[in-house]
Order: sequence, then C-alpha cells, then structure tokens
Amino acid sequence: MANLATKPYVIGIDMGGTNTAFGIVDARGNVIASDSIKTGKHSDINDYIDELYTEITRIVEANDAVGKINGIGIGAPNANYYTGIIEDGVNLPWPTPIPLAELITDKFGIPCVITNDANAAAIGEMTYGVARGMKDFIMITLGTGVGSGIVINGQMVYGHDGFAGELGHVVMKRNNGRMCGCGRTGCLEAYCSATGVARTAREFLDIRTDDSKLRELDADKITSKDVYDCAVAGDKLAKEIFEYTGTILGEALADFTTFSSPEAFVLFGGLTKSGDLIMKPVRDAFEKNVMKVFKGKVKILISELKESDAAVLGASALGWEVKE
Amino acid sequence: MANLATKPYVIGIDMGGTNTAFGIVDARGNVIASDSIKTGKHSDINDYIDELYTEITRIVEANDAVGKINGIGIGAPNANYYTGIIEDGVNLPWPTPIPLAELITDKFGIPCVITNDANAAAIGEMTYGVARGMKDFIMITLGTGVGSGIVINGQMVYGHDGFAGELGHVVMKRNNGRMCGCGRTGCLEAYCSATGVARTAREFLDIRTDDSKLRELDADKITSKDVYDCAVAGDKLAKEIFEYTGTILGEALADFTTFSSPEAFVLFGGLTKSGDLIMKPVRDAFEKNVMKVFKGKVKILISELKESDAAVLGASALGWEVKE
Repeated sequence: MANLATKPYVIGIDMGGTNTAFGIVDARGNVIASDSIKTGKHSDINDYIDELYTEITRIVEANDAVGKINGIGIGAPNANYYTGIIEDGVNLPWPTPIPLAELITDKFGIPCVITNDANAAAIGEMTYGVARGMKDFIMITLGTGVGSGIVINGQMVYGHDGFAGELGHVVMKRNNGRMCGCGRTGCLEAYCSATGVARTAREFLDIRTDDSKLRELDADKITSKDVYDCAVAGDKLAKEIFEYTGTILGEALADFTTFSSPEAFVLFGGLTKSGDLIMKPVRDAFEKNVMKVFKGKVKILISELKESDAAVLGASALGWEVKE
Repeated sequence: MANLATKPYVIGIDMGGTNTAFGIVDARGNVIASDSIKTGKHSDINDYIDELYTEITRIVEANDAVGKINGIGIGAPNANYYTGIIEDGVNLPWPTPIPLAELITDKFGIPCVITNDANAAAIGEMTYGVARGMKDFIMITLGTGVGSGIVINGQMVYGHDGFAGELGHVVMKRNNGRMCGCGRTGCLEAYCSATGVARTAREFLDIRTDDSKLRELDADKITSKDVYDCAVAGDKLAKEIFEYTGTILGEALADFTTFSSPEAFVLFGGLTKSGDLIMKPVRDAFEKNVMKVFKGKVKILISELKESDAAVLGASALGWEVKE
C-alpha cells in the first residue's frame, strides 16, 4: 500500500475505552515515536480531540515530521470504515454515533481513515507482520472479546455496510449456549475470549470434583492469566480448560475455512501467549474438523508484531491509503 | 463485465453428471440457442469433448455466430477456477483430475474458463439476475446438495486455492449431527438440501406418532417434492418439515452474515419453489438469530433466472472475463 503515499510518515491511533495510544510510523513499520493519553479523562469529545492534537503535535514537532504526515489511521471499537463514524454500543465516555474521521481531519488538517480494532490489526499484519504477501487470510483477535479482520483478494472485507468480520459472534453452541455480551447466546466470543476462559474455569470448578490449584483462588476473580499460570505449573484441570477453549476455536476456524479458503489464520492477543497450551488443541481440532479438501493446507499462525506496538502499527497502516 | 469483451457472444456450458446443457448467450443475457447432450454416453473424455464440439459448432453455425464467440464458460462440479481442472470426488464418468479448460480451449480454439456450479450461478445472478448492481451478496444453491458462491467487493471469492464457498459444509449440529456426503457430520447440506428434506421427513415419521399424508407413501422413497405436495394440501407434519429446514437455513444465513455482511442472499434451486413454506421460516429464523447490527438490513431473495436457462447463463457469464 505504501507505494501510493506522497509523504514519508503516517500516524496510527489505537483508541480503547481506557487508553488511547498513538505513534508516528514510517513505511517500513518502524514506530518513530509513540505516547498515550487517558481516553476517559474528558467528558466532552472535543476536549479529548484537543488533547490528542496537542500531544501528537508535540511528538510530530520533536521528530521533525511537520508536513511529512501522509495520513492518520485510527482503530476504534465499532468504527465504520465507510462512514468514518463510531457507531452505537461501545464502551466510550461520549454519546454515539461519533463522526470521528471528520473531527480528526478537521482538527489536524490531515486526512483520516478509521476502522474497527480487529480490521486495523489485520491491516497491520498484512502490511508489516506475518501476513505480508498473503492475499487471503483471516485475523482473529483473542482479547476481552473475540474480533476478526478478513482479507480476500488482498482487500479488507468491510461488507455492504462496513460491519463485516464479526466472527466472534458466530454461534458455536446452539443449545444451552452461554449468554454473550451481544445479547445472543452460544457465540464464539463467550468461549474463546480471555473472559470466556475465566467463565470456563468457573464452570469446570463448579461441576467437577477433581483437585486443582485454581480452587485456591476466589472463583469470581479468576482470570485467564490465573488459568495459564496453573496450567504451566502442571495443573491438569487448568490444562483441560485450554483444551476445551482451543477445541472450540479450532472447530470455528474449520467452519470459517469453508467461506474464504484462507492461506492462513493469524491469531493475536493475550491468549496466544499461552503457546502450545492453546495452539495444540486449536490445530488438532482444526485438522479433525475441516473439510478434506482443506486438510494440511491452512496455516494457523501467531502474530509476530510486538504487542505494545501492534495496535498503533495496524491503525497507522490505514494512513497509507487515505485519499486527499 | 461485458464491457471488456471484444466479441458479441459467449458460450455457456453446464456440465452435470447426467446431462450437459450448452447455449449461445448475448451481452444482455438472451439465450440465442441452446441444446444438450448426455454426459455419461462416452467412456472416454475425448469422445465427450468431440461430441460437444460437433453439437456446439452446429448451433454456432446455424446462428451466424462463427468468429463471434468471446469465450466459453463452464460450470462443473469441483471445477477449479485457478487451475482449470476438475478435481477429485465428483460424479462424472471419467477419471479425475480432468484438465477441462485446456481440453476445451485446444479443441475449440476459444479461451475457456471453468468454475464450480454454485459460483457459476452467482456470476449469472450478478450479471443477469436479481443481484445485478450488487457488490456484496451470497448465492446459496439448494439442490441435491447445498452449494454457495460468494461475491465480495464485486469479485467472486475463490480463496487461496480456488475452493472457497463451501458453505453447505458449515457444521450446524455439533452433537449427533447427520452423516454428510463429505464424510463429516452435522453439515448444513445434510439438512437443507432436497435430500436433507427427505431425510427430515423420514426422521419425523419415525419418531412422531401424529397423522400425516406422508405416512401413505413408502418412507424410503419420499422426496422433497412429496413433502411439498403434502404441505400444500395442508398436511401439518409436512409443513413442520419445511419449518425445521427453513429454521436451520435461517440460522446458517445469520452466521454467514457476520462474515461478509452481504447486501443480500440469493437462494436458487428446487427447494425455493416451495415459496413461503420455506422462505417464511428462513426469514423468521434469520431475523431472530442475526446480530443486532444486521437486523432488517439483509435481503433474502429468490433467483429470478429461468431455471432451465440459469445454469447455462451463469456459466456463460464467465465467457466475458476470459483473457486471450
């Protein structure tokens, strides 16, 4: 994408409910400078935009990048690429919809493109990460929720309305499925997010009687990190929680393959740090469940982008495709 | 697509296990002339190609179309768009793989493109049917099996290896799912194909005790047409079979929507003739199960192409995109 750009740098902004991280990035994916502000500090969106402008201008000036910014890319929850608007149902301190792309473009005098966080991650992976050179892959982000960004024929899939790629909300359990934050039941996200792993832990502790180090913890406060720590220490029940989680994810990836026959899935986020504990059951369940014609053909990879930089990098990659 | 073509006609060939239909088509989708031969008549693929050549040449000459054919498009089971080859696992009288595109191009001296039947149907729908002007839609063919052709950003989705769009093999029942022809269990195709409807009929008759006209038939020979006839005649159990089938299909379409957020689904094939018997439960289950952000936004349409012409039309549309 970078070859159409007329200026040497882009700015990436990763807007989360708690923090907003931002950075200046060059065409090779080097983060020249970065910083962050608290998203929730301002009750008025315009004050937030003002602080963002002040802080970004500061690092732009300090790095001799004034006049050298090709575009601004933002990854934000429920951000619509087509409309430039953050839609309803997000954990942000301001009323929605928010015309974010327009607000930023007006304030900075630099064209801005926005998309949701998982799409930004996919673009980052395609531009700078393990998916470089791939025309067909699916990014799965395993965080508090499960997000996805789909690339087909070298293009991000936005769908007819900008909301494509909600694979965290494919139904994996049609009977007695868990409640999901989206208001439905049985979604992939209710099982394979960090929160889902903690829910599985509580469920296993409830219905089973075998020993586990997890029983020493306050069940209501168990996190996926606790499950990881116990599993690494050899706890059998904790390991089985990862097997359960990985199996559901592998079954889901097998179904997704029938859709776009991707060259690879790229997994990203905290859960992937559990390594083989999660990846082995994912790969096993994938190969067991996928159609014969796809067996042995689809790579399941872990993102190699540095987690601290990845969100900003992904968002920044959008800054190369702005239209003035 | 037609605007890149240099000649006024294309030839479409629909290659099925029993019959091969073919026709000359103009840029407006008029079938100028058509005919068919028996696929199974020749034990040698070359004899089959020879007969096809003789018969197509006959209608080309009779319609003053010599030298006016832009390309040949073929829809065939397991036909790979990228390689031009018919892969394994198909119900054809010759050994696979079959380098069909090359055989036809060599014999006819006209460039040939092949794809699987469901993709051909999607291209036909986009070029001449209800999906004209749509950039994002999903074609679902409900015949002996369930096929699909996916269009995103105005392009057919072939995937990295040419095998994308196998949505008939997404798993809808993970526990005690029916055996599917693909060797796995619980696939959409095992429930929502014509064969699936007949299987549901036998299952319902087995486990239920209520009256039904279907009980007057030989259970082993019940077809989806029998279920339709009984439902139209007011048979309650037959109607419930369509509700069961339509509900599963609607749930599947709701999941597919999270992938590419299509503007529409276009349903095609025998089962759609059952009209509201099947379409009402499909639409109800879709709206009930789809994520909130998609509710009320996605059209579920029935193909308007004449069934007798549709397969040839769909295949022919590929003839506009040949590269010489």
